Amino acid sequence: MTKMQDDRKIVRVDLDTRSYDILIGNDLLGHAGGEILARLNCKKVAIVTDRNVGALYLDALVESLQTDGIETYTITLDPGEKTKSFDNLIAVVDGVLEARVERSDAVIALGGGVIGDLAGFAAGIVRRGVHFIQIPTSLLAQVDSSVGGKTGINAPHGKNLVGVFHQPDLVLADTSVLDTLSDREFAAGYAEVVKYGLIDQPDFFHWLEKNRTEIFSGRTARAEAIAKSCEAKAAVVAADERETGRRALLNLGHTFGHALEKATEYDSARLVHGEGVAIGMVLAHEFSARMNLASPDDAKRVAHHLKEAGLPTTMGDIDGTLPPPNILMDAIGQDKKVKGGKLTFILTRGIGEAFIADDVPPSEVLAFLTEKHPQ
Amino acid sequence: MTKMQDDRKIVRVDLDTRSYDILIGNDLLGHAGGEILARLNCKKVAIVTDRNVGALYLDALVESLQTDGIETYTITLDPGEKTKSFDNLIAVVDGVLEARVERSDAVIALGGGVIGDLAGFAAGIVRRGVHFIQIPTSLLAQVDSSVGGKTGINAPHGKNLVGVFHQPDLVLADTSVLDTLSDREFAAGYAEVVKYGLIDQPDFFHWLEKNRTEIFSGRTARAEAIAKSCEAKAAVVAADERETGRRALLNLGHTFGHALEKATEYDSARLVHGEGVAIGMVLAHEFSARMNLASPDDAKRVAHHLKEAGLPTTMGDIDGTLPPPNILMDAIGQDKKVKGGKLTFILTRGIGEAFIADDVPPSEVLAFLTEKHPQ
Ligand SMILES: NC(=O)c1ccc[n+]([C@@H]2O[C@H](COP(=O)([O-])OP(=O)(O)OC[C@H]3O[C@@H](n4cnc5c(N)ncnc54)[C@H](O)[C@@H]3O)[C@@H](O)[C@H]2O)c1
Ligand SMILES: NC(=O)c1ccc[n+]([C@@H]2O[C@H](COP(=O)([O-])OP(=O)(O)OC[C@H]3O[C@@H](n4cnc5c(N)ncnc54)[C@H](O)[C@@H]3O)[C@@H](O)[C@H]2O)c1
Ligand SMILES: [Zn+2]
Ligand SMILES: [Zn+2]
Repeated sequence: MTKMQDDRKIVRVDLDTRSYDILIGNDLLGHAGGEILARLNCKKVAIVTDRNVGALYLDALVESLQTDGIETYTITLDPGEKTKSFDNLIAVVDGVLEARVERSDAVIALGGGVIGDLAGFAAGIVRRGVHFIQIPTSLLAQVDSSVGGKTGINAPHGKNLVGVFHQPDLVLADTSVLDTLSDREFAAGYAEVVKYGLIDQPDFFHWLEKNRTEIFSGRTARAEAIAKSCEAKAAVVAADERETGRRALLNLGHTFGHALEKATEYDSARLVHGEGVAIGMVLAHEFSARMNLASPDDAKRVAHHLKEAGLPTTMGDIDGTLPPPNILMDAIGQDKKVKGGKLTFILTRGIGEAFIADDVPPSEVLAFLTEKHPQ
Repeated sequence: MTKMQDDRKIVRVDLDTRSYDILIGNDLLGHAGGEILARLNCKKVAIVTDRNVGALYLDALVESLQTDGIETYTITLDPGEKTKSFDNLIAVVDGVLEARVERSDAVIALGGGVIGDLAGFAAGIVRRGVHFIQIPTSLLAQVDSSVGGKTGINAPHGKNLVGVFHQPDLVLADTSVLDTLSDREFAAGYAEVVKYGLIDQPDFFHWLEKNRTEIFSGRTARAEAIAKSCEAKAAVVAADERETGRRALLNLGHTFGHALEKATEYDSARLVHGEGVAIGMVLAHEFSARMNLASPDDAKRVAHHLKEAGLPTTMGDIDGTLPPPNILMDAIGQDKKVKGGKLTFILTRGIGEAFIADDVPPSEVLAFLTEKHPQ
């Protein structure tokens, strides 16, 4: 599925009439205009970004687009998970309408997963859908959130509870922009890379164990890890676009992770998404061991690898006090993966052997959380 | 496509895996629980309604659902077009989440097109889509808005500019509830019935000319007109679900109509949607005549029929002052049907011969509006 073109990799997401390319390379920002016009007949774009990313890369993007004759309009938001709110959705929708972006035009997300999820949701609802282009700038966004068409915002009841499926028309993953990403955010994105290995690719997990330092420092192994992750995600999405089945595997670590994000009030000083996922994946492996589904050694091996990558792996690693287990349980109940009272969890039989369990008794989860709770 | 079952008519909307039934009959409210359970395995519903409709029909619906073991949760909103706002969308989304409606459960719209559009939008975005059932209670909603999956709210920039396509799983059009509808709202709905004749069914228009009084007073002709309208809409929707082509014909009269609704600030004391459509359809026929596409006699005949039905047919029929032609033009430019500067309008070659014109010069429209403007 991966093709090389000069120094670029191309991963195709096969979704019938909504198929699209993910380009991975190190000077895509400078070629954005041409790549867009090769695919869309669009005259105008509304670029959504956050202050951090905007300060670094907005000018280069705008220049590339304007050189190719595309009119631009920019909407800059605060960075951080709290930006994924109804208030900001309204602001973006308003900006896109104000720019008179038509159905043949596009919204561009320039930023991490927060900007991608929010801008994609806006693109999906303005005029009941305008074109959408992802220019992911965080590792997490390049390997995960920019691919697959899930968009959304958070609600007081939980993460990502409101949104639509709206596939992008193009994803431009410029690997050179990752150089300005903080170590902490890089590690957080790496958690999602590890996830693909843990779901169903034990060999990839082994390769990551061997190449971790190279991925964190150098570009070749890094680009390879990104392409491999995009391929893994693209395959799952192509098989199950709307998450009626297999796609739920991508939620490995996320039910626990989302509960922890909620428990820390989406305060990125305490926990960012990828960190929640890292802890969540360890918990999912430990819970699977507790249910006699997997060996406790696998949970230890996963925790070891994530820890070496600089990620938190236990609830105790989170700064400050966590709410009691029953409140965490409540957040889990409000998470999306609920089916008639019983909980749906992604559990595992070992590394690379995740599966969907839709009959997990809440009482077992509560007992487990109580045991693991640090306070 | 219409089948009779006892005293009921069934119109099927063919949309592959998203196909659904429209039931038309006179005691559907009392059988809602059974009809829903025959199609969905849902344990809980969130009912969205407005105060007018809620006072009349909510108890009967809740009773029918609870008798069949479905848990209910109700969200009651103010009546009127202004209810289609982001604020109310947030309130409904919040209520649906509060009720812990899961992906296998449903949102029910009990009301006119306002409630249907708003509740459908909420159902489309909560958890990226939960089931949705339309129980349309106005004539307009029964013949038009409840069928086809277009949902949405208004923006400061114009009508229905924000929304999603989210098909219902079932439409229950209980004709007996129309007895409490005001004459004015009945007439407004009738405008959309006439629209189907004007688009491509001259025979249906002739039948309406003959049966108008019967449709307004009695039940048999009325149910027939409703079923015929649903069939017409279902056929267009099945051919072009996402309005990339033919479906745009359903916008006959709507570009002018929406501009007038905006010009009267969605104040239903001055103008309701169907009235805007009535004036808009006359304007579309007159503009077509002005462009030498159709005979001016057709425009007169359309105006005559709508007027007899109690509908406004000219801008002068609207109470109060209208903004000047250039402001109306601006609203037309912000309407959805714009393509690279030129305007897309539904024009006609005569009664039952509407077509999509995507090259209408804005200058011609402005000149026409200036001529027709009452002030
Ligand atoms: N839609 C999906 O399928 C999906 C999948 C996974 C995660 N997500 C969502 O993604 C979000 C997390 O994404 P994220 O980790 O990218 O968070 P983010 O968007 O908040 O980015 C993290 C931080 O890095 C900064 N940043 C981004 N790129 C940078 C760069 N190149 N240089 C310097 N700073 C940069 C941002 O300003 C921000 O402060 C969560 O909201 C999560 O729910 C969505
Ligand atoms: N989604 C679509 O495809 C589509 C198509 C056409 C129109 N629409 C939308 O539909 C809306 C107009 O719908 P509407 O005309 O039904 O307006 P509405 O929902 O405001 O209803 C009109 C009035 O009638 C009252 N009412 C409804 N049913 C009643 C009953 N049985 N007895 C007594 N009172 C009753 C309501 O409370 C309201 O005051 C507009 O917002 C328009 O944009 C949508
Ligand atoms: Zn994630
Ligand atoms: Zn209408």
